[in-house]
Formats: sequence, structure tokens, C-alpha cells
Amino acid sequence: MLYPALDTPCVIVDLDVVERNVRRIQALADAAGVKLRPHTKTHKSAFFARMQLEAGAAGITCAKLGEAEAMAAAGFDDILIAYPLIGPLKMARLEALARRVKRLLVSLDSYEVAEVLSGVGQRLGRQLEVYAEVDTGLHRVGRAPGEDALAFCRGLERFPGIRLAGLMSHAGPTWKAGSHEDLLAFARAEVAAMLAVKEGLGRPDLEISVGATPIAHLVGETPGVTESRPGTYIFGDRSLMGLGLAAEADCAARVLTTVVSHPVLDRAVVDAGSKSLAMDSHRDGGHGHVVGMPEVRVARLSEEHGVLEFGPGTALQVGARLEIIPNHVCPAVNLFDRVYGVRDGQVVTEIVVEGRGKNT
Amino acid sequence: MLYPALDTPCVIVDLDVVERNVRRIQALADAAGVKLRPHTKTHKSAFFARMQLEAGAAGITCAKLGEAEAMAAAGFDDILIAYPLIGPLKMARLEALARRVKRLLVSLDSYEVAEVLSGVGQRLGRQLEVYAEVDTGLHRVGRAPGEDALAFCRGLERFPGIRLAGLMSHAGPTWKAGSHEDLLAFARAEVAAMLAVKEGLGRPDLEISVGATPIAHLVGETPGVTESRPGTYIFGDRSLMGLGLAAEADCAARVLTTVVSHPVLDRAVVDAGSKSLAMDSHRDGGHGHVVGMPEVRVARLSEEHGVLEFGPGTALQVGARLEIIPNHVCPAVNLFDRVYGVRDGQVVTEIVVEGRGKNT
Repeated sequence: MLYPALDTPCVIVDLDVVERNVRRIQALADAAGVKLRPHTKTHKSAFFARMQLEAGAAGITCAKLGEAEAMAAAGFDDILIAYPLIGPLKMARLEALARRVKRLLVSLDSYEVAEVLSGVGQRLGRQLEVYAEVDTGLHRVGRAPGEDALAFCRGLERFPGIRLAGLMSHAGPTWKAGSHEDLLAFARAEVAAMLAVKEGLGRPDLEISVGATPIAHLVGETPGVTESRPGTYIFGDRSLMGLGLAAEADCAARVLTTVVSHPVLDRAVVDAGSKSLAMDSHRDGGHGHVVGMPEVRVARLSEEHGVLEFGPGTALQVGARLEIIPNHVCPAVNLFDRVYGVRDGQVVTEIVVEGRGKNT
Repeated sequence: MLYPALDTPCVIVDLDVVERNVRRIQALADAAGVKLRPHTKTHKSAFFARMQLEAGAAGITCAKLGEAEAMAAAGFDDILIAYPLIGPLKMARLEALARRVKRLLVSLDSYEVAEVLSGVGQRLGRQLEVYAEVDTGLHRVGRAPGEDALAFCRGLERFPGIRLAGLMSHAGPTWKAGSHEDLLAFARAEVAAMLAVKEGLGRPDLEISVGATPIAHLVGETPGVTESRPGTYIFGDRSLMGLGLAAEADCAARVLTTVVSHPVLDRAVVDAGSKSLAMDSHRDGGHGHVVGMPEVRVARLSEEHGVLEFGPGTALQVGARLEIIPNHVCPAVNLFDRVYGVRDGQVVTEIVVEGRGKNT
């Protein structure tokens, strides 16, 4: 039986694979002369963030103020919160955090957020550094490239408590790329959109900060980028496998699960459902990749059930254990208080997910 | 501003609405002479389970052994774990739990599980009560109705440490019902399938235990049912709204969220993404119901972003707060360590989600 000391479902993380993934993306950034600022949303854990810094990362990225507070408590002192923050409760916390760490950056795309952040900067007695987010195709947050982004950035000068330190984007369409050529074309368009704003502002000092793992693989081919903020690369997942950016062996984090039911010949059920694997969809359908058994389809999830479907060649037994690579590893890890570090098939350590539950 | 003392995203639960929902389903069960054994997976919280027991529930249902342990620690002593359990670690915990509570039931659909549960019963020196699960159409776990279920139940007599106490189903297709007639037809077929097995076994004492909220609304019209295990009814959600089983005002649990970006006229972004609302889909599309604004569509979720789309008649402001009813409330609550009880728009208490994170 796999990992008899662990009960299922749980998350195991192969630390040898993690170290290889961390070194690989760091080396790509180093070769391109780009700062790496890994997004901690994937692991939400000081253990892994420390590994990333020790490998050469320039700082870390967080999605939430609460995650940044957890990381600051663990000693990290150069943090980008890549998220627009607003509201009096958050501003009080942000001010306290800014007093605690060496460098704190926040992203924004509205004057409402600029105004409250400026108030924090004024109370601090120094300008808070901000990144303006540019919408390079995801159509989520961010100002439209060109005139809108340019005018927005110029308008930020009216807010005395903040200072524009960079332009930031999050690669949306790259996740839909069908080929390496697609991916590269998306990435180059993304960077070009930000460089045009930077040039229009006449601010050669501005960082050009790009998000997501796909573009982190391409920083050597996208001149102009100065900072890369990948998250998923550290663990890998089925989405990266689908893009050809990770093989099964590169996926360090797996949900360890047990077959609990096998009522008919072509269907079995495991104890990892949407409360373990998360419900994120995948363009090829299915809800995860069963390690070593590509012929088994994770056809459906309910909360605590993963329904596996397969043909006559597959034999599974109630009580058997499997490893499943989630479609999207970040929300899966977020469902666990801790993950288990393994090497060579042995559990070597238990790792707390400090940022989990820090929803605000 | 809504609930200024709370930071977002968080879950608020209107306790007046909860009490009404609890009374309503309890009254339906009482009128039909059916035992109510609410599924705690929705709230995972002793606070709400206690409310259900005080209203007349006969016991509780849990999805996981870890949830049952959390409930036992909070004083509950009549627990069904509606899940097949296997593996030495779980058997040791199950034995300890069985010694602790007055009554413990476990469901199963395989002889592999029967064997290990029988071992627990033998170590306890008394038979462990089990429910055999019948697959009434969900095609997840459960034996096929008719000969397969009948033969399976007869075979359970070979295991001296367990005693068959009932037949259990989980209503699958009811979630897809297009009308009340559909719903009733599905429910009656489900019950008929189990009654045929009960009759075939010649065991008039067997419980007929049905799952899910839709059938809990119909227990008065499905004679033969002796136990009902609804979960979602206590909070309500967009799925129940879609089935016509809850109005907006019946949905007690909402994710309180803040508009953080509004980059273009027809799109805004809130700070509730898939790590707050969960990613469960809805047959009508969309990822949640914005309270009081049915014209606003929760079009897409990423981890920390909910993308709202709307027409020219809608005005939203960065910093404004909204309440969103999740598609599926159970996985949403599972993303928070605590929820906030409110009455008349005021926060009255903080409620710990004890079962969250008890994944095994």
C-alpha cells in the first residue's frame, strides 16, 4: 500500500520534484535577467516560499492581505499583494503590515483603491509602492491597454501617498493556448501592451511584471519583462500537463486517495471528491489525472466521491490507494490544513499550509 | 455598508432564516412519521447540528469519519457515517468512536468494507450497525436495485461483527428534475427500488433512509421512507432555488463580498472567487446569485476573483458590498473556518466550522 502511515484523502508533495521545479524556473528567470517573485497562492506555505527565496527569488507574491500577514509572520519581508485592496478594516491591517516588512507592494486598477492606499501611505509618512494592472486579455481586472491604462497611470500622480512602481498583468489567454507558438504569441502581445504604456509614461524605471506559469517558461523570449510571478510551476498540475509544460513526473503534489467502492465492473469510487480535488474544470474534461493509469477517467466528483470510469483492462480493488494529480492544484491544496512532504516514496515531513483560511 | 464589522469575503448566516428552514423540514418529516437525520456536511458545525436536534431530529449524518469525531467531541451520540470506510487507520479510529457514542451507523456497498467493519464489531464485542447503499440512479456508490442489492444484503450475513439495519440511497437524478412531477416521480422510483429489496429480504424492521433535500420535501408523498437525511435545506443555495425549493429569502447563507475593480462599464470584480464560492456549476450557468440584483451575472470565477457582468441599468461602485448565494452552499462553507450568525442585518455570533479540514 502507498504511504501506509497517512490516512486518505491527503496531499503528498514530492520534495525532490519540487526542488527540481523551483530550480528550473529560477534558472530561466536568471538567464533572462528577470526577477522571480513566485506567487504563494499555490502552496500558501512558508516552507515552500522559503525554498523559493533560497533558490534565488527576489520576493514573494500573495493574493490576499491575510496570506501576506501569514508570510510576514513567518519572516518574509518583500511582498507584493497582487490584488486591489479596499475598505477600512483592510487599510488598518495594511498599514500595520507595511510597518512590519521592508517592502510592500499592492496592485490596483481604480482611483477608489488609489485613494485609500494613498491614505495609508500618508499615515505611514512614506509613499506606498503600487503596480497598475493592465488587462492583457483575461478581462478580469486591469485597465485596457493603450489610452485607458496610460491615462489611469498618469492620474495616479494626484495621490500623494502612493508611487507607481510597475505595470502588472496576468496572462489569461495563455491558459487556452493550443501550441507553443500560440503561447509565445500571447506572451509577446501581453508584454508589448505593457511596454507601450511604460514608453507612453516615459518611465524607464517601471517594472514590467507578468503573471502565471506559462509565461514564466518564456521569459527568455519576451524581452522587456523585468519580473515574473508564476505560482503553479512549483507543484505542477493537470492544466500544465495539458499545455505540455509539465509531465506526470513533474507534478509534485498529488491527492492520495483510497478506492472505497467498486459496485460495477467499469466504475469505482475514491474518497477524493470536490472537497479534496476542487471542482475546477479542464478543457479535456475529467477531474484529475490518475498517476500511472492514464486509461482511468476521473469522470465526476461530488463532495467526497471521485467517480472513476475505465474499460475492461483495468483492475481496481476496494481498499487500494491511488495518486491523483488535480486539474488545478492551487484550490486543491487550499482544502487541506497540511500537506505531507515525501521523498522516494517515504513521508519525510509535515508542512503546514499557513495561508489557508486567510480568506480576507 | 453591509456588516461593516466584518471583513470580506466571509460567510454570513441569517439565523432567523435557518430556524425557519429547520422547522419547516422537521415539520414535514414529523407529519409523515419519518425520522429526520440531517446531514451535517452542509454546515460541519456543532452549533447548527444542535439546532437541528433541538427541533426534533433523531440523530445526525456525517460524510467523513473526521466529521463524526468532531461531532462526537461536541457531544453528539447518534451518528450515521454515510460513507464506506476502509483501511487500518480508519478502523482504529472507528472503533474508538464506537466506544464513545451511543449509536454509530456506517454505510457500505462492498464485502471488502463489510469485512473490516465486521472486524471492528468483533473487537467491540457487539455488532456494528450498517446501512447497505442502493444505487437509485446517481451511479456513484451503491448496489444496483433488484437482484444485485438483494444478493449483496444476503451476503452480509456472513460477517458476524455487523448487522444490517437499513437500506440507504442518495437521490441523484432529483437534482436534475425539471418540474415537481419529475421530482416526485424520481423520488417514488427511488423508494420503490429500496422497498423491493426490503421485501425480498423479508426484513420489515429495516430502515429506508433517503438522502438529499429535494426528497425531504416529498416525504409525505413517498410512503415507505422511514428516515430522511437532507443537508442543504438548512442554508439553501442557488441549486435549490433552481429546483423551486427555495426562494432568495430562504437562502440563509451568503458570501459577503466587496467590489474591488470595475474597469469597464459592464463588468466588475468582487473579492469572492472559487476559494470562497467554490466552483460547482449550475445548470443555468453562472456561479452564484447576487442578492437583490438578479440582472447581475456571476459570469466567471478565478481563485480570488468573481467576475460580474451586467447591462447598462446596473450601477456598482468599487468598495460596495454585495451578498452572493453560492451555487452549492456545502463546498463554499467548507472554505471558511468560521461563519457569522446574523439577525436583522446585525452580526450576533461567530460560529466555528468544526468539521472543516477533517478530510479523513
